[in-house]
Amino acid sequence: MIKVGVVGGSGRLGVELLRLLVMHPNVRIQAVTSRTFCGQRVQDRFPIFRHHFEAQFVPPTVDQFAKCDVVFFATPAGVALELAPQLLEKKLKVIDFSGDFRIRDAAVWQQLHGKPHPQPALLNESVIGFPETQRIHLRKARLVGMPSAEAIALQIALLPLLDKAWQNKSELDKDVLENNHITGTLISGIGHASVSTAASLDLNSYRDSIRSTTFDASTCHELQAGLHALAGGEVALSVIPHQVPVMRGMHATLFARLHEPAAVDLQTLYERYFDEEPFIDIQPAGQTVDACTVLGANMCRISVQHSADQKTAIILSVIDNLVKGAAGQAIQTMNIMHGIPETIGLKHLALMP
Amino acid sequence: MIKVGVVGGSGRLGVELLRLLVMHPNVRIQAVTSRTFCGQRVQDRFPIFRHHFEAQFVPPTVDQFAKCDVVFFATPAGVALELAPQLLEKKLKVIDFSGDFRIRDAAVWQQLHGKPHPQPALLNESVIGFPETQRIHLRKARLVGMPSAEAIALQIALLPLLDKAWQNKSELDKDVLENNHITGTLISGIGHASVSTAASLDLNSYRDSIRSTTFDASTCHELQAGLHALAGGEVALSVIPHQVPVMRGMHATLFARLHEPAAVDLQTLYERYFDEEPFIDIQPAGQTVDACTVLGANMCRISVQHSADQKTAIILSVIDNLVKGAAGQAIQTMNIMHGIPETIGLKHLALMP
Amino acid sequence: MIKVGVVGGSGRLGVELLRLLVMHPNVRIQAVTSRTFCGQRVQDRFPIFRHHFEAQFVPPTVDQFAKCDVVFFATPAGVALELAPQLLEKKLKVIDFSGDFRIRDAAVWQQLHGKPHPQPALLNESVIGFPETQRIHLRKARLVGMPSAEAIALQIALLPLLDKAWQNKSELDKDVLENNHITGTLISGIGHASVSTAASLDLNSYRDSIRSTTFDASTCHELQAGLHALAGGEVALSVIPHQVPVMRGMHATLFARLHEPAAVDLQTLYERYFDEEPFIDIQPAGQTVDACTVLGANMCRISVQHSADQKTAIILSVIDNLVKGAAGQAIQTMNIMHGIPETIGLKHLALMP
Amino acid sequence: MIKVGVVGGSGRLGVELLRLLVMHPNVRIQAVTSRTFCGQRVQDRFPIFRHHFEAQFVPPTVDQFAKCDVVFFATPAGVALELAPQLLEKKLKVIDFSGDFRIRDAAVWQQLHGKPHPQPALLNESVIGFPETQRIHLRKARLVGMPSAEAIALQIALLPLLDKAWQNKSELDKDVLENNHITGTLISGIGHASVSTAASLDLNSYRDSIRSTTFDASTCHELQAGLHALAGGEVALSVIPHQVPVMRGMHATLFARLHEPAAVDLQTLYERYFDEEPFIDIQPAGQTVDACTVLGANMCRISVQHSADQKTAIILSVIDNLVKGAAGQAIQTMNIMHGIPETIGLKHLALMP
Repeated sequence: MIKVGVVGGSGRLGVELLRLLVMHPNVRIQAVTSRTFCGQRVQDRFPIFRHHFEAQFVPPTVDQFAKCDVVFFATPAGVALELAPQLLEKKLKVIDFSGDFRIRDAAVWQQLHGKPHPQPALLNESVIGFPETQRIHLRKARLVGMPSAEAIALQIALLPLLDKAWQNKSELDKDVLENNHITGTLISGIGHASVSTAASLDLNSYRDSIRSTTFDASTCHELQAGLHALAGGEVALSVIPHQVPVMRGMHATLFARLHEPAAVDLQTLYERYFDEEPFIDIQPAGQTVDACTVLGANMCRISVQHSADQKTAIILSVIDNLVKGAAGQAIQTMNIMHGIPETIGLKHLALMP
Repeated sequence: MIKVGVVGGSGRLGVELLRLLVMHPNVRIQAVTSRTFCGQRVQDRFPIFRHHFEAQFVPPTVDQFAKCDVVFFATPAGVALELAPQLLEKKLKVIDFSGDFRIRDAAVWQQLHGKPHPQPALLNESVIGFPETQRIHLRKARLVGMPSAEAIALQIALLPLLDKAWQNKSELDKDVLENNHITGTLISGIGHASVSTAASLDLNSYRDSIRSTTFDASTCHELQAGLHALAGGEVALSVIPHQVPVMRGMHATLFARLHEPAAVDLQTLYERYFDEEPFIDIQPAGQTVDACTVLGANMCRISVQHSADQKTAIILSVIDNLVKGAAGQAIQTMNIMHGIPETIGLKHLALMP
Repeated sequence: MIKVGVVGGSGRLGVELLRLLVMHPNVRIQAVTSRTFCGQRVQDRFPIFRHHFEAQFVPPTVDQFAKCDVVFFATPAGVALELAPQLLEKKLKVIDFSGDFRIRDAAVWQQLHGKPHPQPALLNESVIGFPETQRIHLRKARLVGMPSAEAIALQIALLPLLDKAWQNKSELDKDVLENNHITGTLISGIGHASVSTAASLDLNSYRDSIRSTTFDASTCHELQAGLHALAGGEVALSVIPHQVPVMRGMHATLFARLHEPAAVDLQTLYERYFDEEPFIDIQPAGQTVDACTVLGANMCRISVQHSADQKTAIILSVIDNLVKGAAGQAIQTMNIMHGIPETIGLKHLALMP
Repeated sequence: MIKVGVVGGSGRLGVELLRLLVMHPNVRIQAVTSRTFCGQRVQDRFPIFRHHFEAQFVPPTVDQFAKCDVVFFATPAGVALELAPQLLEKKLKVIDFSGDFRIRDAAVWQQLHGKPHPQPALLNESVIGFPETQRIHLRKARLVGMPSAEAIALQIALLPLLDKAWQNKSELDKDVLENNHITGTLISGIGHASVSTAASLDLNSYRDSIRSTTFDASTCHELQAGLHALAGGEVALSVIPHQVPVMRGMHATLFARLHEPAAVDLQTLYERYFDEEPFIDIQPAGQTVDACTVLGANMCRISVQHSADQKTAIILSVIDNLVKGAAGQAIQTMNIMHGIPETIGLKHLALMP
């Protein structure tokens, strides 16, 4: 059994993480913290846990996690920064959802936060929680910074087009793309963690609302850095985020100009690239995607097509931002870190409709 | 007073048209037809009309419209085709929402419908109900084919970039766009008329659903033809339609490569182009758009920005698909056809939130 | 022209009030305050107002309202308490949505707030903003405390059953009800002002959520006191409030045991009682009600029926909590206070669907 | 392994049933029929099944089920009536969701359908799929008629108050209720199977819609008959059904006058009654219920309280209409019929939020 602690267990992401951990056959939850509900019973606050997982919310102190193997931080910025070093010292592993260890370049971190990162060595050691690209590094990682759901959605959708290392290995003898200029939209539900507070304060944000927004500086950097690393060069990304009134779900729609349109069979390219990935599902040719087909499930569904003039690749992909975009991805990461099969605890079907 | 008839007054579009006509100070509604609810009272079926407009649904025969000046068809394909010629002969005007008179090229119409258009002369005479580009022709029109909401949303958003005639007149001495290749997304609510039936039959279509779909052949042609006419040449359009679970609303997000990025001030270009349009609202620089700000109103709000690398124009626009995308646009058209001020009956604010 | 000021113009209720005031032909808005957005332009923050009403949010000081005839307070508790006395002294009228002047019994106010009311004379002078019962007092009122949407919904629905004065006048020679025990439910959208903050903080509150809640002490008292005054005696009210994920709308479903079932024609009773009320619409017999038929409109629709065993009266009623339940009711009240026709500015149809 | 067939596997209920059956460790799905999608692959139509359950929709003929142990009918009225006798003859078991075998009184069935039941012997043999009251009969049942979700929601909520047999056994020496008159509301999502078609055709039914409706004659009878059987006497039921725009979920709010208010500890009564039921969860005293806490789960949560004057019992309960109200209840029933533990395949947590 993997003994698990959760810091920040009463927020939207924390509750989703608990929901998945409770159903994980190899996991025992040792401690769940919440400043807001400290002392209250988890199952009174969130009745879905009654008869499944019963515990009290405790305060977030290091002692609470003494018996844990791994601790998840579903907390605002700064909490993991303070507690993670102490936990690592006690030989625990740490998986952090905040931006504390997500951006691995200390100079960039300093620029975004207006102060130096207090733990540059740990920042350097941390691994991004992205099984599809970091699996080999995750196997021996102690400290993991989870990517944002935005980064997960966009990078998975673009991997086969941008991954130069794989393309070389696969003897694709030319660049797939004409240039590294990607346009498109990323549509999220308003329950997306990073916007929940703003949404609740904003009259515009609710229903019959389809709106365009902007990425914050930190997400912008994360997206660029991830694609740059992958492509081995600059990627010009013009993706407009949107919010619509669904609770969960994220849909990426991306356009990329092809180098030699005729030469690329997009369907085959994507099927081959993701052939062994358990949580990437390439749709049959001609079928589009719907976020409701991944609701509650650790799954990314992708559909690819050419534009009418054959010159542009169009990639459509969906994830549940709270599962494959966050809590599920983190459990997949935990499974890898602990050497158990990657799909354990993540096999349930999406809820539909 | 303009005496008005409505054929198909019990569908989603018909009801919205009635709602706006009832509040129009220069309109008297003479007859409303409905096959389904024939004989029932409008206000019993739709209580919003009680004390405002009380009438019985009548069958759709030509006699019912004897006293009308203009008749709207909010009907499936074929109804206007049959009745419009008889009404025109009696000196009435006709405004049709179906595709019966929307595609003005008889050869294309035949190709799309698998049979020749039965009224080619009328097809040729018909004017597209698009005040922003057809105002001068609408003033003397007898027969109007309303564009789809998709065409309205996309064309308004692209007018300043593609309208070569205006660009020449405005002494913009270069092409604005590098090429006529437009990518992007068009997000609609599931209450959008053209999809309502499908949506109700499809388990995928409901809530926590963000999905990509495809345009049908007729809409594809309409979009291409409209842009072609405007730009005086081919426009490659790679726009993916999406559906999200809101009742009303349509959000276009479009990307177009600029010819000489530095030379174009998009904000000024759009403000100048639409300077005298009463129902186009260019947002202040830096502000994005939200479909809930046009809910129930005959308004298109547009926001423009450059991509981070300055090379791409990004246009964001929103309409209420049932108002500026259909019923409101038709009343604006009717006002023009009858020589009364274009904004009469269309001045109410959007309902928000 | 009635010159109007709005304190708290950037909250959900404040924006709705502005929306209706802007469309009111006899109103000029002189000043709108907002602590949060002070200095920002109203139309930048809420684009629905652009080209209709353009102004800057100002700070809530008495000077701002120097030229006003009437000032609305769409603010949290305490703001009207502080500013209203100064405004009244300058001969302005005040209409307050908070609880500051709503509960007219100083002893009860003290009990609910844990301190004495600082303006007991004004509390005593204030009139409840309920045209259907207070019309005659509102004509000469200087200070109005608006009832909660809950009180409006429940009291309108029960008026014909409980209003002993009218029943005597109408020569209904017996009590209508067997006892004054009312059961039922009151379903609100989560956009209902009094719950918006809680809702946004609570993971349970969002979508696919149908939940029961409880009235707070202040609302409990208000409901009891209103019905008591009406019925001239105790009314035992067992009404459970519910929240569902719609933005606007309130649906009351009430059950009351009839004294002599056979003797009461509920349909006629309700039609007669509300015969001259412009904003109460009794449905034809056999028709139920839907909150979407009052969306954005100052209207209460009511349907009445007997239970299968004829012994119980069942009353169904709907309002838009932000309009007939708040902003519209306040404008109706303002019209009465200023001696202009009660329906001015409130004649628009509901938005449907 | 229980070998299962599903007739009508492409409707909302059929898909939900498949979703649960696929995750059931003791079940193998042998055949799924669909007239509409016959020949198509289940996983192409509903991507949630890809990699979990892959099959083709087949036509609904008896041969398809040759290898099955049990066949579920998620079909409109009449299908089970025709096929069930043949399947029973071949020693299969049948579980039917339609009304074909739900109303066990042949005279009533005839009255409701205007013709005699063609299989009166089977109708007489059939057992209602209601584990909480029929467990002992279900163990040896061949043919089960599932109750409607309405009947499940209302009867579970009222069992402890009405079940005279248990009350006698429990030495509750007095009647709990003053009379058998129940008032209240039953709020459902618009995705509720029995209303989906109507909803899609009706403009009123969609969003910002909170509406009251009426039970059809068949449901009325089912509800009355169920409560009558339980209480051993007439029960006057005045419950108004409502629809709100959520996809799943059902919330009952019921009021019943207590015989001797002071004598009944409702909390204890309910906790004792349901003590051994695995899928009934009585909330801690003072806590209300929310349908989102049972989303996707086979669970009924109940909360009980007294009215302020202590004279009325108020019962609040929630189910997911597609799970505990239909598919989950049927699998619980199947488990009982096949002698395996009742909770197998039904232990997953609700999806929240």
